Formats: sequence, structure tokens, C-alpha cells
Amino acid sequence: MSRIKKSLRVLSVSSLGLLPVSAFAGVGGESQFIFNTYSFLVWGALVMWMCAGFTMLESGSVRTKNASVICLKNIGLYSIASVAYFIVGYNLMYVDVGSLVGSLTLFYGSSPEEILLIEEGAESAAAAVVDTGYSTMSDWFFQMVFVATTASIVSGTLAERVKLWSFFAFILVLTALIYPIVGAWTWGGGWLNEMGFKDFAGSTIVHSTGGWAALAGALVVGARRGKFRKDGTVKPTPPSNVPAVTLGVFILWLGWFGFNGGSQLALGSAFDAVAMSIVLVNTNLAAAAGVLVAISVSRPIFGRVDLLSVLNGAIGGLVAITAGPDMTNHVWAIFIGGVGGLVCTLGMRLLERLKVDDVVGAVPAHLFSGVWGTIAVCIVSGGNFVTQLVGILAIGAFVFVSSYLVWLVLEKALGCRVSGIVEELGQDTAELGIEAYPEFVVMPDTEDMENTDD
Amino acid sequence: MSRIKKSLRVLSVSSLGLLPVSAFAGVGGESQFIFNTYSFLVWGALVMWMCAGFTMLESGSVRTKNASVICLKNIGLYSIASVAYFIVGYNLMYVDVGSLVGSLTLFYGSSPEEILLIEEGAESAAAAVVDTGYSTMSDWFFQMVFVATTASIVSGTLAERVKLWSFFAFILVLTALIYPIVGAWTWGGGWLNEMGFKDFAGSTIVHSTGGWAALAGALVVGARRGKFRKDGTVKPTPPSNVPAVTLGVFILWLGWFGFNGGSQLALGSAFDAVAMSIVLVNTNLAAAAGVLVAISVSRPIFGRVDLLSVLNGAIGGLVAITAGPDMTNHVWAIFIGGVGGLVCTLGMRLLERLKVDDVVGAVPAHLFSGVWGTIAVCIVSGGNFVTQLVGILAIGAFVFVSSYLVWLVLEKALGCRVSGIVEELGQDTAELGIEAYPEFVVMPDTEDMENTDD
Amino acid sequence: MSRIKKSLRVLSVSSLGLLPVSAFAGVGGESQFIFNTYSFLVWGALVMWMCAGFTMLESGSVRTKNASVICLKNIGLYSIASVAYFIVGYNLMYVDVGSLVGSLTLFYGSSPEEILLIEEGAESAAAAVVDTGYSTMSDWFFQMVFVATTASIVSGTLAERVKLWSFFAFILVLTALIYPIVGAWTWGGGWLNEMGFKDFAGSTIVHSTGGWAALAGALVVGARRGKFRKDGTVKPTPPSNVPAVTLGVFILWLGWFGFNGGSQLALGSAFDAVAMSIVLVNTNLAAAAGVLVAISVSRPIFGRVDLLSVLNGAIGGLVAITAGPDMTNHVWAIFIGGVGGLVCTLGMRLLERLKVDDVVGAVPAHLFSGVWGTIAVCIVSGGNFVTQLVGILAIGAFVFVSSYLVWLVLEKALGCRVSGIVEELGQDTAELGIEAYPEFVVMPDTEDMENTDD
Repeated sequence: MSRIKKSLRVLSVSSLGLLPVSAFAGVGGESQFIFNTYSFLVWGALVMWMCAGFTMLESGSVRTKNASVICLKNIGLYSIASVAYFIVGYNLMYVDVGSLVGSLTLFYGSSPEEILLIEEGAESAAAAVVDTGYSTMSDWFFQMVFVATTASIVSGTLAERVKLWSFFAFILVLTALIYPIVGAWTWGGGWLNEMGFKDFAGSTIVHSTGGWAALAGALVVGARRGKFRKDGTVKPTPPSNVPAVTLGVFILWLGWFGFNGGSQLALGSAFDAVAMSIVLVNTNLAAAAGVLVAISVSRPIFGRVDLLSVLNGAIGGLVAITAGPDMTNHVWAIFIGGVGGLVCTLGMRLLERLKVDDVVGAVPAHLFSGVWGTIAVCIVSGGNFVTQLVGILAIGAFVFVSSYLVWLVLEKALGCRVSGIVEELGQDTAELGIEAYPEFVVMPDTEDMENTDD
Repeated sequence: MSRIKKSLRVLSVSSLGLLPVSAFAGVGGESQFIFNTYSFLVWGALVMWMCAGFTMLESGSVRTKNASVICLKNIGLYSIASVAYFIVGYNLMYVDVGSLVGSLTLFYGSSPEEILLIEEGAESAAAAVVDTGYSTMSDWFFQMVFVATTASIVSGTLAERVKLWSFFAFILVLTALIYPIVGAWTWGGGWLNEMGFKDFAGSTIVHSTGGWAALAGALVVGARRGKFRKDGTVKPTPPSNVPAVTLGVFILWLGWFGFNGGSQLALGSAFDAVAMSIVLVNTNLAAAAGVLVAISVSRPIFGRVDLLSVLNGAIGGLVAITAGPDMTNHVWAIFIGGVGGLVCTLGMRLLERLKVDDVVGAVPAHLFSGVWGTIAVCIVSGGNFVTQLVGILAIGAFVFVSSYLVWLVLEKALGCRVSGIVEELGQDTAELGIEAYPEFVVMPDTEDMENTDD
Repeated sequence: MSRIKKSLRVLSVSSLGLLPVSAFAGVGGESQFIFNTYSFLVWGALVMWMCAGFTMLESGSVRTKNASVICLKNIGLYSIASVAYFIVGYNLMYVDVGSLVGSLTLFYGSSPEEILLIEEGAESAAAAVVDTGYSTMSDWFFQMVFVATTASIVSGTLAERVKLWSFFAFILVLTALIYPIVGAWTWGGGWLNEMGFKDFAGSTIVHSTGGWAALAGALVVGARRGKFRKDGTVKPTPPSNVPAVTLGVFILWLGWFGFNGGSQLALGSAFDAVAMSIVLVNTNLAAAAGVLVAISVSRPIFGRVDLLSVLNGAIGGLVAITAGPDMTNHVWAIFIGGVGGLVCTLGMRLLERLKVDDVVGAVPAHLFSGVWGTIAVCIVSGGNFVTQLVGILAIGAFVFVSSYLVWLVLEKALGCRVSGIVEELGQDTAELGIEAYPEFVVMPDTEDMENTDD
């Protein structure tokens, strides 16, 4: 089951015709099994931690009156993703790959050999277990936290106006079906994988998927009231808690070491240990370059260093390197990350011009920089440009169209958008009855009030 | 010494009559030693991180005027627990098990063989060290962070009115004596362990212990002024910083991977690696289920989704799974965690009805869900219902009574409760002279002022 | 290259004449390579996380009007340190040790054997790679996060008045040249190492270096306006967000397990695993003791428990133990950490008397406690007092003088200090155009206004 992913990776390496399998035989059986499994667990825990990062980033980015509901959305989406990927998603991605949604089997978790070993302590089962390379559930854990990342991207873009239950319903479809289908095409061993599409840890598979889903939602749900004024100007909506946004970015940066490092999928050989080290270093350099480029370019563009561009620049750099962090020439990591930061900074302006309201800049950071990173693989890791483009477009078209349809259905069924009065009062008070900071005196948003009748 | 805990676990497994020890021989000597030790260190560090989670949860839950002092209580309690468990607690729990508080020996740390190896580099000592399975201090580290968790539970319940020094004095007794005695009965190899009491990572041993100690304190110290109004209604005291509470819950969720995963106590065999993976997955599913159940049930009960119930539901799910996260049928994890979230949500109302003032809902989350989780072991992991009940009641009675007595003694000696004027002004200003957010304009609690003379 | 650091450590151990290398041969080749590498990666990730800790500590410590710019400074300094240490710093420290700044070679990352292994899968290269003990880039990653720590210390002291670009320029020099030269003298194998200077994880090399650089900056840049009043009293500038400061300290505490634990530099033998466990325990005990001493002494000194002294006391304890956390008598760790907390608490008052304005108390915590810790090595780990003193003084003189000169040059070239009006308005509004908490109503600092003309 889960082995599919790993064997594919091994195949794509050995397809270079250079690597006899024995070169990566590693430390042998049981030790290798433990190294691989433990790597999934530790790095997977760090990826789960990214959900806290998205929560801080988003609750700090929205206005005070919506800071509680975004916390609820984030802990809820992670919980939905966990259960949906357990029941449906994982098997759709790795077992029912060919059938799309045809012969959907449910996931029962541990392999029969593992159950035999754990429940009955059958010594005979141990060898069969060790042969699989790592424990089934460690792999499930690591894959599951990736789904949750995709879902987290959506909540930021649509903050401050999407209805709670419609949002949760969309997340259910995204994590149970849309993302797993994308995953089946690629990491599951489907047609894009067979074409040679390269996306190491998911610039496109995870981040662009989230970005397209968010973009579709932004178009259906629409912009926040008064964000785009009738006179063509854009109403500034600064983050309500900048240190929280910054903390969120640091959490994401840390979690990304798990995201990319763990995507080496193995630790039980010197080859894997060296590769994982390279991946972490490139991940860090790309993020740093994203920050430095955003600092440099935001000054000439805006006349001052724009902190939000800088923080988003780190994410842009991280997303960009995610498709191919495994090159030994680390200068390329600086280049790819730096361009990622640039793409992200410019993308934030572009979206504003197009009157698409993305509260946290998730579409530029995850979609635009994700596209760049997936293309950049052609430069540094021998990716084929046409193949990469096919992957970007196919996944983009599928995710955007299917997400758009789901949002439309939800619009008809439940309504996607809160009423004008809820938006003005804030979802915290109107929907949850709990303010984020109830004791602090908050300045009223006078412009919002004036625009009540628009 | 520390081996006692591990050998017991191995014994209880092999007592099933199914597992020849050789099945778990693992990767052999030195590698196994390193895996086991490193697992304690990495997961132990994550458990230490839970203290930051409790701190954020609690400082966000209290009113602004008490948010600094709760920070001090939390960093203080962790420090007290570290030193007290070093000097007295660990040995009482693992070495002086039979004697209760009779022949109390002090803990000197590393074993003689380890000292020989480290200080003198005696090659001959290496084999003896390796034979112990893991380093003494890595085990101490992992056990110590568990004591701190127990102590953290108390600070939340009693926030906003317990005196700083009385609180610290109670924590000293709890971490030096009460918790270690509970631990001696169970993980230390005492009578409850001999009876077959099952509690994998401490639903009862850690969480209920903290919950009982907190409940005893709440009864002695009493409710916050004006919390339970004369007309029978309950004064709402919403958290002052919801994003901080949410961050705290995410930190706890992350830390729980270490809490439960590390409690496998070993990593040096395929068996342990598979089991640890299963534990992490079940832990995550239970927490997610706790969230989803709390989302679902809080709506019919309160007419809206109650964010605090949802956040506490995650903790309820986590506590519930802690007694038996090692089953291969993961659907049970969803069930146990979901019921844990339900128990926690209902328990919060129950406490209010009983006019017990628990600021953060720690008693429902840690005590009520802990009892449920300890019973649930009978369903999934073959625990004996009577034995589990005996364990729950014996530990409950011991911890509650001894804690109650300690709180009473402190009440006589130091007074447990701040004066009315301190409570009204807030402990931050009155006791510490430092406000949590000194520059923000805070709305006065007018009701509090009206009730000054109650 | 990177091996130098490790082989030196091994040499210094074996120079005791007690340890045949075979005693630490460990688990053999490839497993050892993986253990060592993975240890660098996991602990290194935790050290990177310390940057988030410094950011939270500092953004919570400054006044609201400067809380955004300190976030920018922190994410910027980490990014600068990452790139500067990649291009120049690492090689200066480990390869060009003898030449100071003479034959500066650029760092190209992975070793030729590793590139052969990764890029071409050359089986023949695997053995040569394994022989090096750990992957080049894992070592680089671990060393790089240490540079960033040094840089983080500077931002706190100089908060609220240093210009953004001058600060970044200084950080560039510090991370590309000053710190690497100190590192070359010691861990790189230079003259202080040859003298026998002992500093396990960098009480002096990392923390005092940061402290001296900060002190030099504080003297050149000067105190915040109105901090030291004309009547000789000191204007209190309480932290604007105490829970954020507390969170920062917890993050640092967690990260320090990586900082000190990873500095064992190896995990692939029972010796290393035991030593790493001891290091973590001593680190934790020292921090706890720092807290408890600060709680105890701040009460008689100030008439109440001073939360900031307590939080800084944890850091003082951690810095103090950093020079020698590897002793098996753990009571000494409590002693050293406790004195570290005391030194830090008293040092905060001393600086105020000397009218040096250190916003977060970084100089007492990192410099004063670092000096104490480096001397304490003589008591517990057999360090030579004269050698330790020579190291402290040589590094102190070099860092202080070179930093002072750099700050002076920056003062001439760019100006180091914001204008009075910027300082009064706050750097957030005046320099960044983004407030940290734009919706909260903030009380004006009336004293600041009165002193506009001073």
C-alpha cells in the first residue's frame, strides 16, 4: 500500500541507470526499518505543527472581530482532514489509484503482518514487516499531515466572510476526494508519475492544490465588503496582530524542515541521510532568500520595507523550493527561493489589481510560487519542461474546476457567505458569540459602517 | 532503577504467553540502546513543550488582569517539578516503591557504569551500560516531564485567585510526593501494577492525578468572586485571548505525540517502531474525534458552536486515548476520543451546576476524560474492568484526600486565597506589579465592582 | 572541513589518555553516520526554533509601537545569517582557520564524495562518505543556527531605537566575519582550542559574543530617549505583552535541548547517547535553578517576585550551563544554573546603574552569565582557570572592539539611531507604516511626549 510511494521514488532514481539498488541497501533490515519509521514520525509531527503556524498567521492577519472563528476553522479543518483521509483519502490516493472513485476501498490501517506482530507477537511476522521498509501507520501519519496543509491554505484566503459550515463541507470534499485524486495521479503512481512529473514534496501537489481551491472559493464567495472601493482604490486591511503572524511564519519555517526533509521518505542509508541534510539546507536557504528578496524589492516598490511581503516572502521561498530541494548546488536554492519571494510579492499586487480578495496572500505564496518552483525543477533537477507544465495545468484545471463546482453547490445548498450584518459585526460575535480579545478596547472600523448599504 | 518501568512493560506483554522475548530482540545491543535513548530525548523534549501549551492556554483563558501571574506560576511549577523530581520524586517512584515514604533515598543520577564510561572512558563499562537498554538520564528526563504535566493541570483550575506561594508549596508536595507515590503503585511496579492495572501513558496516573489535585484545590480555595451569582446564574468569564488558547491547544496536541509515542519506552526493534507509529496515529485520531464531537454536540446544546468546548474537546480526546493508544483497530481510537470530547463538554456544564469554579475546564478534560479513557481500555486492550476501577478509585481517593489535606494545611499556614481587593484589582497589579498588556486600554469589569461587598 | 570540529572534540577527549578511540567506535559505519547526521538535523531544527523564541521575547518586551519592526529585524537577521554563513562564515571558521581573513575560500557545500553519491549514485563513493562520520550539510545546518543565535542577542538589546538598515549591516558583518573568527579560534581548531579552552556549546563563543556585540551597540547607539531621567531615576518600560515574552522563554528552553544536546556532535555510540542524555538533563536542571533563584532573590531585592527577572533567570541558567553541561554530578548543574540566574538578576540592575539601556536584559543573560558559565567549567569539568580567562578576555576584547568599530563606521555612514520623532512615534508607524496591533486602543506614553525636547 504505502510502499507504492516509496518504490516509485526508488524507481525514478534507479531509472537514471546509475543506481544499483544495492547502493542504497543501507544499514540493513530492522535498523533501516526503524530509521525510516522514526523519520516519518518525527518529521510528521513537525508538519502537524504547521497547522498551528497557519492558525497564528491567519488569526493575526484578520481583523480582531474575526480572529476567534479562524481559530475554530483551523482546528476543525485539521480534524476533518485527519478523519477523512483515514476513511477515504489515503486509499483513494495509494490503493485505488487507477479507479479514480470507482472501487473505493476503506482504509483499515496497519497491514495484516503488523497486526499479527503487534497483537499476537508472532515472531514469524517480524521479517515480513521489516521487509516493507517502514511501518504502515508512520507513512499514513506523514501523508495525512500533508492533506491538512493543503486544507490550511484555503482558510486564510477566505477568512472574514465564508460561512463556517460551508467551509467545513468544502474541506471534507477537498481532503477526502480532490487532494487524494491529485495525489493518485502523482505520488500514488498514476499517469502524471508515469509521465515523469517531478514534485519532490509538493509545490504543485500540495501547495498549488490548496491555492487553486482557495482561488476558486475566493471567486465564488467574493471579496470582503468594502475591500475594493467604488473609486477603484483598495481598502487597507492590516493584520490585527503582527507578532502572531510572525510567529506563524516561524512555525511554518520550522515545520517545513519536516515537510521537505521527511519527503526523502527514508533515512536508513547514508544516501538518504546525506540527501535529507541537503534538503534541509536548501529549504532553509530558499526561505532566507525569499525574505531577503522581499526586503529588497518591497522598498523600491512601496517606498518602505513591507513586513507582510517579507513574511509572505519566506513562505514563497519555501513553497518554491519544495518541488526540488534535493540539488547539491546550493546556490540554486538561493536563486529559486529568491525568485519565489519575488513572485509572491508581485503576486500579492496582481491579485489586488484583479480584485480578488485573498486575506493572507495565500494564493501568491502557495499557488504562484508553487508554479514557479515546479518549473524550476527543470533547471536544477533535470525535470522535463513539457511534463512539468502538463502536471501544473492538469492539476490546476482539475482542482480549480472541481473546487469551483463544489463551492457553487455549497452556495446553492447552504450559502457560502455570511450576511452583511454578520460581516460587519464580525463572525466572532455574530456566529460564535465569543470575541477573540473581549477585554481590549477596539477601534471601530468607521469605513465599514459607512458602507453598510453597498 | 529506571529499568523497572521497562522490564515491567515487557513482562506484562510477555505475560500474554505469546511473546518470546527474542521476538523483540530488535537491532541488537548498541544500536538498540541509542534508539531507545534518543526516543526518550526527542519525545521528552516535546513533552516539556506541553508546559508552554498549558501556559498559553491558561494565560489566554484568564482575564487580562491575571495573565502575567499565570505565566509565573507555570514557569515556576515546571522548575519546581524538575528539581523536586530530581531530588526525591524519581527514587520514590522507581526505587523506594515498596516503602512508600520509608527508606527514601536520594537520586544521584547516572548509574555507576555510566559514570565510569563517561568520566573515565572505561571501555569495559560500555557493555554493562548497553545491557541496561537506555541511558538512565534519558529515562529520568522523560519521566520528569510527565510530573510537570500533572502539575500544569492544577494551575489552570485555580487561576485568578490562588496565592502564588501557596500554589508553589502545593506543587512541591505534589511533584515530590503525591505523584511519585501514585507512580510507585503503577509504573514503579507496586500493587496496582501487580493487579494488572493498565494505563499506557497515564490517563489516570498523570491526568486524573492532576485533575483530582485541582478539584481538591478548587473546593478549598473556592470560586472566583461573583462567578456564581446569588440568583443562581453563572457569570460568563470569557477568555481574554482566544488565539493564545488555541495556540496552547495546538502545542499540547503536538506535545502529546511525545507523551504517548515516547511511552512505548523503546524504539530499538521493528515491534516498537510499529507500535509507536500506531500510538501516534491513534493519538491524532482521538484528538480529531474529540474536536468533531464537540463541534457537533455544542451546537444543539448551546445553539451555536462553542469554541472553548471544541478546544477542550481536543484535550478530552487526547486524555481519553492516553490510557490505551496501542490498538491496531484505529476506529476505536476515533470512538474513544469522540466520547472523550463529549465527556469533557458535558463535564464543563456539570461542574458549573455544582458551582465548582474551574477556570480552564481542566477537571473535565483531564479527570473526567481520564476516567473514561482508563475504563475504555477494557474494550480495546483487554483491561479488566474491576482492576481498572480499583485503580481509578484508589488513585482518586489517595490523590484527592492527600491534596485536600495539603490545601487545608496551606490554608491555615499561609492562606490559599488572595484578598478580595487583590482579586478585584487582579493578581498582576496587586501581587506582581506587572500587567500583562500594560499599554492596551482594557474595559473594566463593571459587575465585579458592583459585587465588591459580597 | 566540518570534520575538524568533531575530530578536535575526540582529540580533546582522548588527550585525557584514558579513552582508546575504539571505546567510542559505536555501532559501526553506516548506522553511526545516520545517527550522527540525524542528530544534527533534529537538534538543529530545534535551534532554528530559538529564533522564534527571541522574536516572541523581544516583540513582547518592547513597547507596542515598536513590536512590528522587531519582528522584521528578527526574521531578517536569521535570513542574513543563513546566507552569510553559507557564503563566507563557515569556511572562515572551519577551513581558513589559520589565515584569519587571508585566503578566504567560498563554501560550496557538500563534499565531492557526497556529490558523487547523490548525483550519480556512485556506490564506490558511499564508503568514503560514511568514513567522514556525518553528512557535510547536516553539520553546516547545525553550525549555521548557532550563528543566528548570536545575532538574535543583538536585536533585543538595541530594540526601539536602532535603524533597520544599520542593524542589518551590522548583522552581516557579525555573521560573516566576527563570529566565524571567534569560531575559528576555538571550534575551528585555532589557538584557543590548542590552549585547551573549554566551551562545550558556546557560553562564550556564542552567547558572550552576542552579548559583547550588543553591548558595543548599546554604547554607540545610546539609551532610549527618557529612559534615564535627568533626576537620576530610571523610567520603567514594562513589556507590552508578557505572555509573548513567556512563550519566547519556553521556546528558548526547548530549543536549548537542541543547542546543548546536539553539541555532543555525535549520537552513534552508547557513549554519545549517554552523554547527550546527561547534557539534556543538566541543561534542564540549570534552567530550573535559574528560575528558582530568581524567584527567591527578586523578592528580597524588589519586595515582590519580579517576573522579568524570573524569565531572564531561566535564560541566565541556560547560558551558564552551556559551557559545560556534560558532568555526571547533576547537583553541579543546579548550582551553576542557579548562580547564572543570580548573576543575570543582579546584572540587570548593574546595567541600569551604569545607564546602559538593554531593552530585554540580553547582556546580563548572555554575556554576564556566559562569563560565569565559562569559568564554572573549571569547577566541574577540569577546565584550567587561566586558559578559560584568556579565552573570555581574548574573545571579549576582539568582539567588543571590532563590534564597536563597526557600529562607529555605521554611525558615520548611515547613522545608527532613528530620529527623535521616529522614536516618539515608534518605528512601526514611522519606518514600516504598519502597527503591531492596529485595532487596539493604546494608551499614549505621556512622559515621552513631555520629554520631546530633551
